[in-house]
Amino acid sequence: MIVVLTGGTGGAKLVQGLQHVVAPEKLTVIVNTGDDVEWWGLHVSPDVDSILYALAGSLSTERGWGLEQDSFRCHERMALLGQPSWFSLGDLDLATHLTRTSLLRSGKALSAVTAELALRMQVHSRLLPMSDDRVATLIETPGGTLNFQEYFVRERHQPDVRAVHYAGAEHAQPAPGVLQSLAAAEAIILAPSNPVTSIGPILAVPGVREALRRTSAPIVAVSPIVGGAALSGPAGLLMKRVGWSSSIAGVAQAYEDFLDVLVVDLEDHADADHLREGDLHVLCANTIMKSLEDKQELARFTVHAALQARSAKV
Amino acid sequence: MIVVLTGGTGGAKLVQGLQHVVAPEKLTVIVNTGDDVEWWGLHVSPDVDSILYALAGSLSTERGWGLEQDSFRCHERMALLGQPSWFSLGDLDLATHLTRTSLLRSGKALSAVTAELALRMQVHSRLLPMSDDRVATLIETPGGTLNFQEYFVRERHQPDVRAVHYAGAEHAQPAPGVLQSLAAAEAIILAPSNPVTSIGPILAVPGVREALRRTSAPIVAVSPIVGGAALSGPAGLLMKRVGWSSSIAGVAQAYEDFLDVLVVDLEDHADADHLREGDLHVLCANTIMKSLEDKQELARFTVHAALQARSAKV
Repeated sequence: MIVVLTGGTGGAKLVQGLQHVVAPEKLTVIVNTGDDVEWWGLHVSPDVDSILYALAGSLSTERGWGLEQDSFRCHERMALLGQPSWFSLGDLDLATHLTRTSLLRSGKALSAVTAELALRMQVHSRLLPMSDDRVATLIETPGGTLNFQEYFVRERHQPDVRAVHYAGAEHAQPAPGVLQSLAAAEAIILAPSNPVTSIGPILAVPGVREALRRTSAPIVAVSPIVGGAALSGPAGLLMKRVGWSSSIAGVAQAYEDFLDVLVVDLEDHADADHLREGDLHVLCANTIMKSLEDKQELARFTVHAALQARSAKV
Repeated sequence: MIVVLTGGTGGAKLVQGLQHVVAPEKLTVIVNTGDDVEWWGLHVSPDVDSILYALAGSLSTERGWGLEQDSFRCHERMALLGQPSWFSLGDLDLATHLTRTSLLRSGKALSAVTAELALRMQVHSRLLPMSDDRVATLIETPGGTLNFQEYFVRERHQPDVRAVHYAGAEHAQPAPGVLQSLAAAEAIILAPSNPVTSIGPILAVPGVREALRRTSAPIVAVSPIVGGAALSGPAGLLMKRVGWSSSIAGVAQAYEDFLDVLVVDLEDHADADHLREGDLHVLCANTIMKSLEDKQELARFTVHAALQARSAKV
């Protein structure tokens, strides 16, 4: 079993690639829920949905989130009715949130609801939210504390960041299957997602970090930092603010207690030489996934690197 | 002030006519909420919405319910996700239910929420749900008890009816403004809505029937029965089952303790003669509202009849 830890956007691209490299039933994806949000009274799990849609083959390639060929008629009408509209939900996408919210209100756990949605979308890989408990990534800014969507979408990650908290993490439990799949994995891949706000919340769930330290599976991370900056989004600034450098060295730092292999972009080959001085294997590849071929190649490269490291580790 | 008691479909047509006859701020509409339903986790008030949309000029003339030019993409996707789909909500329409549900969950009363929705839709007449408390019209059938939407939409009003209950009515209070507007009205109009399932629940709210008996305003009902049968829907059968005849005489019976004038269709002029033997004024008009002209004419006729009766009553 290949286990992937991931956020939404960048991770969804790698997952799309992995689908062509790993048989669906051999893939388990553990997804960040730290940026889940209550929107229009509905429980929205943006990262879970991006991965669901990616695995179902219906993720909008144009937008990178939401469903292909979606429309936004309800959204426009909500704005007309004076409801908040800085966060968009498509008309088709709404069905996911309505279903999730109804099932949660009926008493089901998020992991069970996610499994039901996956089944309905004919997804044959295993998709696990990191926890059934609520963990909220909170961004402390000079103007006050924002939840992740307020910071990222509403404020377009413009405010400076003082600190990042994973509220509720200390009392959260990993969702059923999370620790077991990490222990039993053939290889573990950390997707090129934001180490602070996408992978960070997963690692903050008690037991997950320990499971990664303890597992016999090789752990490979794909760097979301290319040429000293995030490909998209505020990962660079956030990494600095939590005390890591905004570079591939910072990514290595974030995962230093369990990482076996770091895959960095070809552009960072000079920095890669420095990193190699320690225990860490650092490999260079094209990590910028524009086409489906790019995604498949990086996925193949990453899985191959993991299995190589497995031979070395065993 | 002209006060109208109404359900959805037929009543919405008369309300559309009244808009051209009465100034918006002189019109108060008290609406049945006995067929409100929780659908996909949202609070849906079908009759309130029909009247809201009618007053906003955006009721679908094609369907007779919901919004003009709506689409059903979310609905189709819900079916795909295995959610119940026998009741349709349009993509634009969903915004109303999402907004209502959010506002209700925030602790606002249905009447306050309705006023807010009306304001947002630039409706200048007053729209009052009959009660802020939950009253559910339940239909007892040989196969078990159904809520109104299950009976009417899911089962297409095919099952036989043993009894009709207004569950919760005994403890419900009229919404703020209901009794006051009935007491202060210049005229009160009962729309051509089902006497059992549309007007019945309103009359079942403690205090409403008494207010109608006590008011000095003339009370005019437009018969929903034409030629011995309901123009649409199961009013005929339901009236028989609660002990009234399925005729204009049955309508008179339903409202006998407070009605001043009954407007019946031209087709029923012979029956009208018999009814006139008592105290009741019975007037004939074309009550089949196909065009906007029909609606306006019937509205004008009804208001005129009410004001005539007012002179007689005062």
